[in-house]
Amino acid sequence: MRMRIVDLIRRKRDENELTPEEIQFIVRGYTQAEFPDYQMSAWLMAVLLRGMSGKEIATLTEAMLNSGVTLDWSDLPGRKVDKHSTGGVGDKTSLILAPIVAAGGLLVPMISGRGLGHTGGTLDKLEAIPGFNVNLAPDKMREVLSKCGMVLVGQTEKIVPADKKMYALRDVTGTVESPALICASIMSKKIAEGIDALVLDVKTGSGAFMKKEEDAVHLAELMVETGVRMGKRMVALITDMDQPLGLYVGNALEVLECLEVLKGGGPADLRDLSIELAAWMFYLGEKTTSVEQGRNLAQRTIADDSAFEKFCELASLQGGDADALRNPKKLPRARNHREVRSRSAGNIQEIDCEQIGIASLVLGGGREKKEDSIDPAVGIVLHKKIGDAVAHNEPICTFHFNSDARLSEAESLIYSSYKIDAGKAPARGKLIRRVIEGEAKVGARVR
Amino acid sequence: MRMRIVDLIRRKRDENELTPEEIQFIVRGYTQAEFPDYQMSAWLMAVLLRGMSGKEIATLTEAMLNSGVTLDWSDLPGRKVDKHSTGGVGDKTSLILAPIVAAGGLLVPMISGRGLGHTGGTLDKLEAIPGFNVNLAPDKMREVLSKCGMVLVGQTEKIVPADKKMYALRDVTGTVESPALICASIMSKKIAEGIDALVLDVKTGSGAFMKKEEDAVHLAELMVETGVRMGKRMVALITDMDQPLGLYVGNALEVLECLEVLKGGGPADLRDLSIELAAWMFYLGEKTTSVEQGRNLAQRTIADDSAFEKFCELASLQGGDADALRNPKKLPRARNHREVRSRSAGNIQEIDCEQIGIASLVLGGGREKKEDSIDPAVGIVLHKKIGDAVAHNEPICTFHFNSDARLSEAESLIYSSYKIDAGKAPARGKLIRRVIEGEAKVGARVR
Repeated sequence: MRMRIVDLIRRKRDENELTPEEIQFIVRGYTQAEFPDYQMSAWLMAVLLRGMSGKEIATLTEAMLNSGVTLDWSDLPGRKVDKHSTGGVGDKTSLILAPIVAAGGLLVPMISGRGLGHTGGTLDKLEAIPGFNVNLAPDKMREVLSKCGMVLVGQTEKIVPADKKMYALRDVTGTVESPALICASIMSKKIAEGIDALVLDVKTGSGAFMKKEEDAVHLAELMVETGVRMGKRMVALITDMDQPLGLYVGNALEVLECLEVLKGGGPADLRDLSIELAAWMFYLGEKTTSVEQGRNLAQRTIADDSAFEKFCELASLQGGDADALRNPKKLPRARNHREVRSRSAGNIQEIDCEQIGIASLVLGGGREKKEDSIDPAVGIVLHKKIGDAVAHNEPICTFHFNSDARLSEAESLIYSSYKIDAGKAPARGKLIRRVIEGEAKVGARVR
Repeated sequence: MRMRIVDLIRRKRDENELTPEEIQFIVRGYTQAEFPDYQMSAWLMAVLLRGMSGKEIATLTEAMLNSGVTLDWSDLPGRKVDKHSTGGVGDKTSLILAPIVAAGGLLVPMISGRGLGHTGGTLDKLEAIPGFNVNLAPDKMREVLSKCGMVLVGQTEKIVPADKKMYALRDVTGTVESPALICASIMSKKIAEGIDALVLDVKTGSGAFMKKEEDAVHLAELMVETGVRMGKRMVALITDMDQPLGLYVGNALEVLECLEVLKGGGPADLRDLSIELAAWMFYLGEKTTSVEQGRNLAQRTIADDSAFEKFCELASLQGGDADALRNPKKLPRARNHREVRSRSAGNIQEIDCEQIGIASLVLGGGREKKEDSIDPAVGIVLHKKIGDAVAHNEPICTFHFNSDARLSEAESLIYSSYKIDAGKAPARGKLIRRVIEGEAKVGARVR
């Protein structure tokens, strides 16, 4: 009997597990416009409300993956590894760990996205480096990867077209917030990169998409299971996003902070998390036999400057001004600075991290809509984080800005996001809250 | 802030109760094509899976009602009452009770539907009367109603256009089976008839849409509550559809059986249910002060022939050949008859009633798709029902048919639907399983 989409909607609605053939029929049919949006959106809502089994999610991921081209670096020697973050404020680890891991001898074919709303995006940060081109043709991408062991580019239309079409529909039909659909969307794009192993940085807290740790853990478990089912080595770190990572928020400012870490400095939280993620990449990519050895290797690439040099090499290969990395004064700089001073004294109890991201957006450093342009120079330098004592009139942060159109709005956001009182300073939260390891099943493809 | 459909989808998805303004926004916006099908279908699926409160259903019903014209007979003296059945096999009570109630002095402005699948439709039965026209212009409808106290017509495009558009979408998006949506669809169309009171015949059993009594009761309760909230006097009878009602299935055959009842004969189950439904119509329409008095009045209209004469009068007014009612040999008759004989002996334990409806469809008496044409002459006359003893080779039923193309298929359906064995005859099930009364709140419109 011929499969009909209406029957598959009903089957999912009634909590049945769909077969691989059924899920492939849906993804292929929708991508090729064999049935209309109104049937897909009903199915997506049924998936959101009824959920999917691990097997269904893996099949969905694979079907989405197969909707377009996949990258293949099997002719290049060495394991290919990547990291994916669910996004946050000041989350700039990609620019640190990719050079570390490439300097350590693995290949990092990383495809990243742009910032939207309160979160930043790796592509926007890279474009703060004068001349840096994130849109490479496939041949050029291969050339850069084979020459320097890493390449940092944007998504192309040819990779997972099903996701592009499905996401556009989910966005307007209230079906974004499905862990199963989020998992398949992320994992299909990551696996299309042609990687052997993937480290997930799943953020939780006031600046993350998943404010609740249990939601972050659930999504992380789904993604790890999906990756393992598709034959990838996987780990997920559940990490803190109750305040910005590091001290700098804004594209050029974040590049600057990454350079500090690559040169052996920078704030501890950013350095520690970057090294931890790189360590897992080394371990899953079988460059080291333990995570501990991975940490040591990561630190060595900083100590011997090889990671920093790798980043400069990458910038040159992708058309960027490596000189601006060696002499950061050449990075875009805002014309104006303004300190935001505390109106009270006490200890910082909480930060509404999402509001900090919005404040940076309001200064011109982010996008409200996908089409908005951004100013790479602007942003916020934080002077105080959770647990710090602050005196009356002491600077909490400094705005870097070019237009004062929405300055007072940004200031209000900072004031309302910092909770300061006389209560004793809270204990520092753990940066890495949990680690969710996948079984190592390289080559044992589970279908 | 401007209302956005995507936010209302999310609110329903997250189990919130929508406000009247929100529900009106959705119904009006969808009917006027202010947002696309793919958003409506996601919302419909969220409604199906999350449900609606009684208040939400009443608002939805009213919003759908207000999408088109409503009929107004307030200038005609007397209460206007109607009956709605959820559909079954051999369910022909409308043709009996409408003449009874009109003969008893109430007004019955009945809008009916056509048969689909295993169920028959009142319009198809009426059209088995030569010349009978179910498509009347509004003025003609008013003339017939005022002259003879009843009118039996089909749905027009102008009444509840929201339902037409919503139902077409539900049909292809797996969102038909929502009690809230079914209730609003039925009640909006019935209340658009301009009635004061409504009797619901909610069928349950093997030939009904709701096979399980609990589902029938749930829908009945929703409809009664909705009607009461909208100021109507309401009752729902949960009635048996584990076997066909009466003995005749097929359009002209069913007209014939109705004439027998109107003339004081006919099978007991059909007669009893018709009188019971008419009795409730008399009571809710305040023609009698009790249901018992309503029964007596109904029986009187049969005994004194006034109900039969009313039906003949109606047929004439709607262009039909009343002579065919007085002399039923003039009704359409099939050219061929064929008995289906029992292959075993014993007592009839069960009948799969839906299969009997399909057998009649297969003979040409029903529709698989809305566009199919039907043969009014064909159908099935049952000789045996549940609890009857049957000898080997004794006729179970007789087919009336014009084409033998699918005769053996119909025969197989009969054989597989009758469960006959040596076990003792089952006790006759109650015809009326439950009565669900609404509070009488005429004029007290609850919003």
